[in-house]
Amino acid sequence: MNTLARIATLSLFALSATCTIASAADDSVPPSPNGIEFPQGYADWRVISISDRTDNKTLRVILGNDVAINAARSGHTNPWPDGAILGKVVWKSAAEANWGAALAPSKFVHSEFMFKDSKRWADNGTGWGWARWKGVDQKPYGKDANVAQECIACHTPVKGRDWVFTTPALFPSVMPAPQ
Amino acid sequence: MNTLARIATLSLFALSATCTIASAADDSVPPSPNGIEFPQGYADWRVISISDRTDNKTLRVILGNDVAINAARSGHTNPWPDGAILGKVVWKSAAEANWGAALAPSKFVHSEFMFKDSKRWADNGTGWGWARWKGVDQKPYGKDANVAQECIACHTPVKGRDWVFTTPALFPSVMPAPQ
Repeated sequence: MNTLARIATLSLFALSATCTIASAADDSVPPSPNGIEFPQGYADWRVISISDRTDNKTLRVILGNDVAINAARSGHTNPWPDGAILGKVVWKSAAEANWGAALAPSKFVHSEFMFKDSKRWADNGTGWGWARWKGVDQKPYGKDANVAQECIACHTPVKGRDWVFTTPALFPSVMPAPQ
Repeated sequence: MNTLARIATLSLFALSATCTIASAADDSVPPSPNGIEFPQGYADWRVISISDRTDNKTLRVILGNDVAINAARSGHTNPWPDGAILGKVVWKSAAEANWGAALAPSKFVHSEFMFKDSKRWADNGTGWGWARWKGVDQKPYGKDANVAQECIACHTPVKGRDWVFTTPALFPSVMPAPQ
């Protein structure tokens, strides 16, 4: 193999290695059946609130992208602004090994998201896109493009809160104290 | 008032307004009695885990600065690296208004922090600095420089875990799945 061929081969190898590293991340997660792409990087989003669902023994953290965080901290959440994405990360709860009276996350269950876009999602009557990815392998949830109907049915009691259960938790450094 | 005087007055007003906005944030929070400064910007840190303390009816989110997040996601938590800061934000828990079987944050209780610096904090036997700020007005907790003794006594059961109760919760996108 001459020098040029070696350089070409090494370059191809380097390119291939780069692509492998890049595709090892979230971009291998398929979209939801309704066309919503998996929100890469959601684990880096900031906290809006947390909850403990005692009925199904799960703990949840509710995260927001920058648009959602700005809305939550300034109290503009009814309606939430277009561009806001809320993410709920869900784990089974279990007794904390070294503090028996505390519950902490154990097995990862799923991550689920609401995407506010009042034009794109006008047709489903909520102005939100809805999607969930299940398990550690993050499989898209639902059989077809109507996957949101199950989400919407469950969220109907909070239709008057722009379909959102979560009330932003108070972080005194960045939000006004309650009156 | 002549034009120059108007410009000078407006400039001073603008400067004053800028300073007021800047000082309205965290920099008004006094340090802990052991000299630890309030970690400004902690509300923007990323999530390590969450918990529900059923014994005192509080919900907690455990946040980490960048050093702590990198350690948590790569499994380097025993010991945690110097520079890591863990923050625990605590609220009283209350039934979620629209989902009675769920607990959600209500009144803000306090934020408390562990600062890993094995040299600075060698003398207290843990390698961590400990501090807490109470209530929405974020008053430093403790009477004197020995404030950490109470924290350390409570954390002694997890001495073998580098004094940390929290196990990082699994975020599949950014952490290897458990074996």
